[in-house]
Amino acid sequence: MTESIRRIVLASRPSGAPTQSNFRLEEAAMPDLPDGHVLLETIYLSLDPYMRGRMSDTKSYSDPIPIGDVMVGATVSRIRQSHHEDWRQGDIVVAYSGWQTHAISDGSDMRRIDPAAAPISTGLGVLGMTGFTAYAGLRNIGHPKPGETVVVAAASGAVGSVVGQIARIKGARAVGIAGGPEKCAFVKNELGFDVAIDHRDPDFVRQLAEACPDGIDVYFENVGGAVWDAVLPILNDFARVPLCGMISHYNDDGLAKPSVDRLPASMKVIQQKSITIRGFMNVEFIDQQPAFLEQAAAWIADGRLKYGEDVVEGLENAPAAFIGLLEGRNFGKLIVKISGEQ
Amino acid sequence: MTESIRRIVLASRPSGAPTQSNFRLEEAAMPDLPDGHVLLETIYLSLDPYMRGRMSDTKSYSDPIPIGDVMVGATVSRIRQSHHEDWRQGDIVVAYSGWQTHAISDGSDMRRIDPAAAPISTGLGVLGMTGFTAYAGLRNIGHPKPGETVVVAAASGAVGSVVGQIARIKGARAVGIAGGPEKCAFVKNELGFDVAIDHRDPDFVRQLAEACPDGIDVYFENVGGAVWDAVLPILNDFARVPLCGMISHYNDDGLAKPSVDRLPASMKVIQQKSITIRGFMNVEFIDQQPAFLEQAAAWIADGRLKYGEDVVEGLENAPAAFIGLLEGRNFGKLIVKISGEQ
Repeated sequence: MTESIRRIVLASRPSGAPTQSNFRLEEAAMPDLPDGHVLLETIYLSLDPYMRGRMSDTKSYSDPIPIGDVMVGATVSRIRQSHHEDWRQGDIVVAYSGWQTHAISDGSDMRRIDPAAAPISTGLGVLGMTGFTAYAGLRNIGHPKPGETVVVAAASGAVGSVVGQIARIKGARAVGIAGGPEKCAFVKNELGFDVAIDHRDPDFVRQLAEACPDGIDVYFENVGGAVWDAVLPILNDFARVPLCGMISHYNDDGLAKPSVDRLPASMKVIQQKSITIRGFMNVEFIDQQPAFLEQAAAWIADGRLKYGEDVVEGLENAPAAFIGLLEGRNFGKLIVKISGEQ
Repeated sequence: MTESIRRIVLASRPSGAPTQSNFRLEEAAMPDLPDGHVLLETIYLSLDPYMRGRMSDTKSYSDPIPIGDVMVGATVSRIRQSHHEDWRQGDIVVAYSGWQTHAISDGSDMRRIDPAAAPISTGLGVLGMTGFTAYAGLRNIGHPKPGETVVVAAASGAVGSVVGQIARIKGARAVGIAGGPEKCAFVKNELGFDVAIDHRDPDFVRQLAEACPDGIDVYFENVGGAVWDAVLPILNDFARVPLCGMISHYNDDGLAKPSVDRLPASMKVIQQKSITIRGFMNVEFIDQQPAFLEQAAAWIADGRLKYGEDVVEGLENAPAAFIGLLEGRNFGKLIVKISGEQ
C-alpha cells in the first residue's frame, strides 16, 4: 500500500507540565499485516491522566515510553483488515493502539463492543476503563453504605462522575467537587449529585464541611493537593479512601519544594480515626469487568448512569487537549476523534 | 483513715517535649470506699506514648486530661479492700488507676490476672495492651504470609518486639529497626529477629534495603519520620501498613515547620503500588483479646515469645521516665514500680 499512517510520538520528556514541544506528529508507511494479526483504524482515542506518568523517565507502574515511540493510549477502532481467525473486518473494538491513525494488533489486547448497545465512544469512558475504575474502587475499597457520605473530586470528570452516581445508586449521599460554576451545575443538575462544590471558591473549605454535616465516610481520591487538606479534618472514624490518582501532582517535577510537610498531620489523622487509605489500579480487579459492563449498560439504559464527553477533532489536536486535561480544562471524558465512524 | 495517697497530676500542658514542670507530685487523703467499689493499691504503672497526646489540649481519640487531674495510665494493682461482690481483697488486676499509689474503681475497667501464669508486670506489656496491639495490627491488617518480609521500627520496644516475634511465628522474615547497637543486639540475639538495623547509623537507608532483598510486604508503623522515608521506596506492590503510632512526631507542637512536603511522594507510591495504609487502635479489635491472651501465654511458656521490661522504681521518677520514653531512652516495655508485690 502507498497509504500512510499518522502518529504522535514522544519527542522529549517534559519537565513539569508538558508542552507542544514534547510531542511530534509523524507520517509513516502503512505496515504490512502479518498472519494472526489485524489492521486497526482508530476512530476514537482516549486521553487520560496516567499518560503523564508514562512520559517521564522514572519507573512507574509501567515502563516509560521511549523517546521517539508512539504515545500510548486506549482507542475505539474498526478492524479494517483481518488475518486472524477470531476477528472479522468491520468489527468495532476497544484496543490499545495509542496516538495514531492505524495500528497492528494480535488481538490479545482487544475487546469487541456492540455498537447497538451504546455510542461506541463510551467504550473509552463510562463503559470503559474510567467507568470501571470508579466501580472497582468503590466496590472493593470504598464500600459505601446507605446513608453514608461519599465525596469525590474532579466530579465532572470521567472517573469522578461515575463514582458519585454509583454512590447514589448504592443509597449514599454524593458530594462532588469540581472547578467552576459550569462544571458544578453539570454535576448537580445532570449527574444528580446531592451537592456540588466549586474548589475555586475562596469559601470552599467551609462549604465542603457544610455539605458534609455527618462527616465523610468515603473519599475517592483522584486529585490530591488542597482538596485533601479540606477533606482530612472531616473524615469520619473508619473512613475509606480509595486512592486512584493525584492529578494535581502529575506535573510536579520531582524536586521537592520548600513547603510545609503535610505528611505527619495526615498520618496522625489516619491513625487516630482508624482510616483506610488504599491505592489501586483497575487491572487488579479486572475479573470484575464483565459484571461491571453488564451492570453499567443497564444503568445507562434506565437513565440512572449519565456521562459527559468532551470530544476533540483530529489527531493533531491531541497534544493540546492532553495538556488541557492536566489543567482541568476538559469537561467530561476527554476523547479525540481520529476518523469517521463509518 | 489518716493514711495519704500520692499522685502525679498534669500541672501544665507541654509545648513540644514535656518537661518536669508539666507534672506535679501531690499528696491527698485516702478516699472513703463506697459500696460497689474496690480500693486498689498500685504495684506497677505502665508508661506509654499515647499519654503524650492526652496531655495536649487538642481533641484526640480521647479527651485531654484536665489541668490538675491525675495522669492517666494502666496499672497492675492489688485489691486492698473490696465493697464489691465480684472482687476479693488480695486479687491482682490490670486496672486503669493512673499515676497514683491508690485508686477507687467500680470494677468495670478491671481484668483479673493469674500471678502463677507469668510475672504480673507482663499484664501491662506482652500480656497486656502493647502485646495485644502488636497482635491485632498484624492479624487484622498486616496479614504476614510465610516467606514475606515484615519490617518494624522501635523493634526493642513494647509493641515492636512482639510484632517481629509473631511475624516469625507466622513464618515471615522479621527485620527490626532500633536505636543503637545495644538495642539491635537484643532484637537479633534475644528476640530472634532475622536482622536488626540501627537507624542512627549513617548507612541506615542502604542497610535496610540490603536487609530486604525481596522488598517489604508489611511495615508496622509506630515511629514515622525518617524511617518511613527509608521504607517507602522498597515497599512491595500490595504491601500492608498497620499504622499504630508516630512517636517521632508526638512532641511536634502543631506548628507546621518550613520543610519539604513529603505527602505527595508518599501518596504517589501508595497509589502506584496498591498499598494499604490502615490506622488502628487496639480497642477496635478488643473482642480478640481473650484469644490473644491465651495464645500469647502459650507462646511465652514454650519460649517462642520473649519480652524485655525496663522497670523504674518509684512514682516520683515517672515523669523523667516518660520524658525519656518519648526520646527512645527506654529499653523494652517501660514500667514504674510503685509498691512491693506483696
